[in-house]
Parts: sequence; C-alpha cells; structure tokens
Amino acid sequence: MRIAILIFDQLTALDAVGPYEVLSRLPGADLRFVAKEPGAKRTDTGALALSADLGLADLPDPEIVLVPGGEGNRPLLGDDEVLDWLRSAHETSAWTTSVCTGSLVLGAAGLLEGKRATSHWVYREALRAYGAEPVDARVVEDGKVVTAAGVSSGIDMALTLAARVAGDDVAKAIQLGIEYDPDPPFDAGAPHKATPELVELIRSLENAP
Amino acid sequence: MRIAILIFDQLTALDAVGPYEVLSRLPGADLRFVAKEPGAKRTDTGALALSADLGLADLPDPEIVLVPGGEGNRPLLGDDEVLDWLRSAHETSAWTTSVCTGSLVLGAAGLLEGKRATSHWVYREALRAYGAEPVDARVVEDGKVVTAAGVSSGIDMALTLAARVAGDDVAKAIQLGIEYDPDPPFDAGAPHKATPELVELIRSLENAP
Repeated sequence: MRIAILIFDQLTALDAVGPYEVLSRLPGADLRFVAKEPGAKRTDTGALALSADLGLADLPDPEIVLVPGGEGNRPLLGDDEVLDWLRSAHETSAWTTSVCTGSLVLGAAGLLEGKRATSHWVYREALRAYGAEPVDARVVEDGKVVTAAGVSSGIDMALTLAARVAGDDVAKAIQLGIEYDPDPPFDAGAPHKATPELVELIRSLENAP
Repeated sequence: MRIAILIFDQLTALDAVGPYEVLSRLPGADLRFVAKEPGAKRTDTGALALSADLGLADLPDPEIVLVPGGEGNRPLLGDDEVLDWLRSAHETSAWTTSVCTGSLVLGAAGLLEGKRATSHWVYREALRAYGAEPVDARVVEDGKVVTAAGVSSGIDMALTLAARVAGDDVAKAIQLGIEYDPDPPFDAGAPHKATPELVELIRSLENAP
C-alpha cells in the first residue's frame, strides 16, 4: 500500500512521525515522505530535520495521503503545485488524511467542502472558511477524509486508519508493538480539561487566525 | 537547558520524536540530536531519516540525556566511544533517560546497576544482565535515571520530566499545546491487555533476547 506523508520546512515533527510509526507497520506498507523539493526539512523548533526522499511527481497516486501541521504549512495554503498534487491524489486515494493544521491544507485544496473535519483545537473554527463543519473530536471520519486534532492525535488517527485498512487485529498488534497504552501524568491535554490561563497561553503562542 | 538525544541508524523514530516534541517546548530548552557521526540517521523502517546536528564531542555535558530504542542501538552496547560519552554525560547530568530499548544502552554503560528500570515489554527482563531491577511500569524514576517503556511511552516520560524540571503548569501547558489527550481506538497497548496470540506475534517480530 502506497502511503505518502507530505512534509515541508517548519513542520511539527510528531504530527508526521506519530502516524508514520503506525502506518509503516501495516503489512505491505510502502510509506514515503514526499515534499515539493526532496531533501531535509527542518522542523518548527529548528532542532531536527526529517528527510523527504521523493518529490510530488514521484508519487502522484498514493493510496493514503497524510498532511501534517506546523506553521510551515501556511505557505502551502496558496501553493498551486502542492494543492494540485493533493487534489489529484485525492481523486484516486483510498484515504485522504491530516493531523493538526494539516486540515487547513486539505481545506485550501477544496477537499473539505461540506465535510465534517477537525484540527488542532486552536485552529478548529478556521476550517469554516473552507466550507467544512468543525467537529470537536480527536479523530473525525467523513467518507474517505479522516482528520485528526492536534499533534499527538495523529497516533490515534493512524490506529483508526490501520483498523479500517487491515482489520482490528492488525491495528491492535501495531498498538502493542509500539506499547501505546498512554498514561500521561496529567489530564490537561484538551482545552476543557485545562485552566483558562493555560488555554489563553497556548492560544497566544499559537498565533491563531 | 542543554538536552541531548542520541540517535543512530535504525532507530525507532517515535522513541526520539515523542520526547523531542515535549522537551523542545521547555522554556530555555536547547535540544540537540547528537550521534557518533553527525548527519542523517535512517530509521528502522528505512522510510525516514532524522538529522543529528552534533557529534558526541560537541555536547559532552547535557543536562538531560536521552537514549531512544530501535534495533540500531544494539551495536552501541559494545561501543566504547558511545558508552564513555554516556558515562561522562551521566556524571554531570540532571537527568539520564531512555525510551524503549534505549535502557539497554544505559545498562551497557553501567548506569543501571542496582537501579529500578524499564524498557519495551519484550526486552524488560534483559535489563537484569546489567544489574537492574526490571519494573513493569510505563515510566520508572530511580534518582536521576528515568526510563520509559516501549516507543510511545517516551511522551509520558517526557511530560513527567517536564514537570520535574519546570513545574506542573509548564508540563500541562506543553500537554495542551500538543493536544495530548490520548484516546486510542483499542485498549491493546500492553501485553496484559492483548490476546496471547498478539503477544506471541510481537515477541517473534521483535527477535528478543
């Protein structure tokens, strides 16, 4: 199964690497990182680079396409080459997916028109500009379009996708292999679980629309 | 705060990138990926490379040192240059940490002697060879040595560490920023939650000691 994860400079690494760690373990997975220009893409902190082995033209017809978030994807919202590639990939994909603000890119490509979708909680309402109906959920499926909430939610999205693609037992085996039995020391990972001060802090740091 | 994540070819990407995504958000964090030879390190699937900007000699005294897992770390178990660097870093570190089979490397460096520690569930018992007491827990703290269970547990470990280093509110803010409100579609992420068949499957795939 051909899987394309689109990356770019200033991406949020975990948005891409969480799903990669799950989807690359699917039986028969042929997962590639693709970019407008192949090569190393620096993450939003500057401390890490992820490699894109292929350009867009090298993988025009992935069966799963995934767009991660990070402020580096904002230039893509007006990039016809990237949006055309996404639209074309979506025509034949089995699943078109995003993590975090990756859904803004799907929206800019016109793929969320009339669809239920999600994003990082700070950016969720911004999906309305693309004709989407924002949903407060960690993973939102609408037909073959599957969007995930912020950063770490890509792991949950990818396990959901793994079950759809290969069955529950395969998804459970992958979950056991990556020992995904989450147990965070705090219960503060969603805005309704955090203090108003922390919610405001993250909003201000995120520089949201 | 100087943070070093040691990487190598054939690492498991999420072991490193989960904690990176948390620890790089600590106020004043100066997080670097280091390797025996700086440059791109291919992950265990071959589909991705992560960049190491620094060599070991470039960062001899990190305040946090983290060793991830992946079968590519087995050669490090007998690599004096790496083990000496770890021992030396540990002398002055505030925290010496690992994710997944990264604890085997800490063990080989002699840093787990008489300590409680954990690893990926498949490899946990192998820690006894290094004088450690294996503990069935997602995050194990013993003094300044903090070890995490398999792959995804590095996120929980890093949030625990963030709280120790910068206080609960900072850790909660980071958790909210990465929207870590986990909700996997299955409850199969630990061996006692999975079927015996899946446990046996993962054991055989992992090629455990």
